[in-house]
Amino acid sequence: MRTPIVETKNKVGESVELFGWVQTIRNQGAIKFIIIRDVSGVIQAVVVKNPRVAKIADSLTLESVVKVVGLVKEEKQAPGGLEVTVNEIEILSLAAPELPIPVIEKTGETELPKRLDWRWLDLRKPENLLIFQVWTIMERAFVDYCTDNGYIEIHSPKLMSAPSESGAELFEVKYFERKAYLAQSPQFYKQMGMASGFERVFEIGPVFRANPSFTSRHDTEFTGYDIEISFVESHYDVMAEEERFIAAMLQAAKDQYGEKIKKTLGAEVNVPRIPFPKVTMAEAKTILKKLGVPSESDGDLNPEEERKLSEYIKEKEDHQFVFVTDYPKEVRPFYHMRHTDNPELTKSFDLLFNGLEITTGAQREHRYDVLVKQAKEKGLKLEPIQFYLNFFKYGCPPHGGLGFGPTRFLMQMLGLNNVREVTYLYRGVKRLEP
Amino acid sequence: MRTPIVETKNKVGESVELFGWVQTIRNQGAIKFIIIRDVSGVIQAVVVKNPRVAKIADSLTLESVVKVVGLVKEEKQAPGGLEVTVNEIEILSLAAPELPIPVIEKTGETELPKRLDWRWLDLRKPENLLIFQVWTIMERAFVDYCTDNGYIEIHSPKLMSAPSESGAELFEVKYFERKAYLAQSPQFYKQMGMASGFERVFEIGPVFRANPSFTSRHDTEFTGYDIEISFVESHYDVMAEEERFIAAMLQAAKDQYGEKIKKTLGAEVNVPRIPFPKVTMAEAKTILKKLGVPSESDGDLNPEEERKLSEYIKEKEDHQFVFVTDYPKEVRPFYHMRHTDNPELTKSFDLLFNGLEITTGAQREHRYDVLVKQAKEKGLKLEPIQFYLNFFKYGCPPHGGLGFGPTRFLMQMLGLNNVREVTYLYRGVKRLEP
Repeated sequence: MRTPIVETKNKVGESVELFGWVQTIRNQGAIKFIIIRDVSGVIQAVVVKNPRVAKIADSLTLESVVKVVGLVKEEKQAPGGLEVTVNEIEILSLAAPELPIPVIEKTGETELPKRLDWRWLDLRKPENLLIFQVWTIMERAFVDYCTDNGYIEIHSPKLMSAPSESGAELFEVKYFERKAYLAQSPQFYKQMGMASGFERVFEIGPVFRANPSFTSRHDTEFTGYDIEISFVESHYDVMAEEERFIAAMLQAAKDQYGEKIKKTLGAEVNVPRIPFPKVTMAEAKTILKKLGVPSESDGDLNPEEERKLSEYIKEKEDHQFVFVTDYPKEVRPFYHMRHTDNPELTKSFDLLFNGLEITTGAQREHRYDVLVKQAKEKGLKLEPIQFYLNFFKYGCPPHGGLGFGPTRFLMQMLGLNNVREVTYLYRGVKRLEP
Repeated sequence: MRTPIVETKNKVGESVELFGWVQTIRNQGAIKFIIIRDVSGVIQAVVVKNPRVAKIADSLTLESVVKVVGLVKEEKQAPGGLEVTVNEIEILSLAAPELPIPVIEKTGETELPKRLDWRWLDLRKPENLLIFQVWTIMERAFVDYCTDNGYIEIHSPKLMSAPSESGAELFEVKYFERKAYLAQSPQFYKQMGMASGFERVFEIGPVFRANPSFTSRHDTEFTGYDIEISFVESHYDVMAEEERFIAAMLQAAKDQYGEKIKKTLGAEVNVPRIPFPKVTMAEAKTILKKLGVPSESDGDLNPEEERKLSEYIKEKEDHQFVFVTDYPKEVRPFYHMRHTDNPELTKSFDLLFNGLEITTGAQREHRYDVLVKQAKEKGLKLEPIQFYLNFFKYGCPPHGGLGFGPTRFLMQMLGLNNVREVTYLYRGVKRLEP
């Protein structure tokens, strides 16, 4: 019966079976000290006065997988104050003697591309394990929030006959005798849920962008969280939902891993107060102008502007989040609804978290005629998207929604500086392996 | 302030705001009866002695979306015993007058391909809504089971440089200057989680199969649930996990929707007793031979054999599930571990649910040399899968896992006869739209 290493503290004086990886080996005269690591923690195993076991231990390499049977005792000098005196050792998987990258070192000592080449060794570092433990809790909190609030979960197809966003950055698939495209977002299909009368839907799934850039914030495939809700009055109803699920996600992460995140990654998890600060794009531009931040456009924010605006809000309102609302129609897709009293502006928003955009959302245009007009105005051909336009012909409620990027969110929560660090296996222009 | 229709029963004598779809309109002299439907239920709205409202109501079409303000009162003759006397009505989205398929009819009256052409209208049927409500609860139970039992959630890439299963049924993607392939399963990458020391991982995501068949059980894209666990003794440890999460999923579905499923779909949700019956492939073949079921192969079961075996187990052991274990190596992939005492047989299993295969699982071969030998024996080229083989070089624990098909599972749970019915938007050879 296996004992997880973290539970050895309750087994002092008992014999236990441990399974794990050989993290370090140290020979000190006739005594061998082996640090064993499993998913729950590390412990020092000691081989002493046992020639049979010592012989097996001599053949061990770093990062081999072993089963150890031994007696737990208190030992002040050992890490964690505990030690296991080994009676039996079995090698379950012998690691090749030369590791291509070291497993136990500070993240950052080996350069990132090399770490990504050997991602599974890189993920053995406790701080990387923690990232995915936090992800698990964060995602569960999102699922719980949605399920508790009447959302229906959908899994929409990733194979499409036409682009869901714009024609750019699209991956083409050979689909029997024709072509298909990989979904750039579940946008069209979560809106279909509104036309289906589901009223509230959420989806968690991959999105694909044939984006040729190499920045720390971009990849060709990433996980998206999406929601869409019916009978909204405006985009403010959508922002209110986001405030609530983000608070729930951060609360869950803080409750379960707050201490560990602080200790391991040096980041403080804060649960934000609701409502979040909100500024219109026009207001944001006024603020940034006063701050003297250079700008290339009246209607959109560049990364530097995002950072400066967040810093300003942090200082002024002591808040990590800020919604930027009411983007001009030029920078938003055709399906964003426009203000009745100012048709130049859309009922849309982005959310910035510590200076990084993590969400785009809007109330959608649900009136068939207006939607067609807006699509034409953007220069879209109607025929490829007619299947989508049809959703609005037979009764579709007013609705809105958003797309949320969990990798960017996690990166900001944990104070990391690259989406590659919080992606299980990063995909980019030059990276399809492992 | 909106009142969901189901809550009108607590609002008798009060004025409410309802939002929903116009399901039927009936004129009876000067009185109009309108059935309004939202995600929670239906109610009868009555327009009487109100010429202004009557005039708006006259312009209504079926399936239009409306807002209604009115007084709730008890009315024995109305469906559900309640009625709303309309004071205000607002048309939020006027449906085109001719619906391409009727929304309110028994499922099956319109042929399936036509229903799939207009899937969002088809999904307005309460019995179809229920399928996705059950899916939501079932998936949450799976996530809860995994998260409560120390699993880490992964989202592995769907873009790969090489096939994850076999070279057949593979979709090719134009990936910048090279080719990529869509993942046929997360097999390689959930095993990578074991090499990463995550010990237990789960994944929920799309899988892609360029399968040219048109059966009721096949599609080109579907959702998969996958788990992989370390330090197993054999495939029996993996089956034990599956028994527990299936029981949890069926318990959750029964608790929340058992009555409704019975009433709406006529299916009885049963929570299975643990452990599930298990027979080896050899035993299964002996049973089927006795039953006189024709067979084409010693090593695998055809759909008819699956049905007959399930019927036999149902009769003999009163159980809806049966594991078939120990498949011969010829019908299993190279990464399935083989029995030490009989290397012709794999430590593998399928799970049948009421006669349909819903899972394939196995203990995996984690020994690099043996794995390479088995890959060669299957005629695989090593170079394209070297990135995968590398996972086993630097310490990889014994492990096993399974892939579970939620659509097939739901189909059997609800007594439906086609995966298309339980898929939000089905994808097949000839279907990429809507």
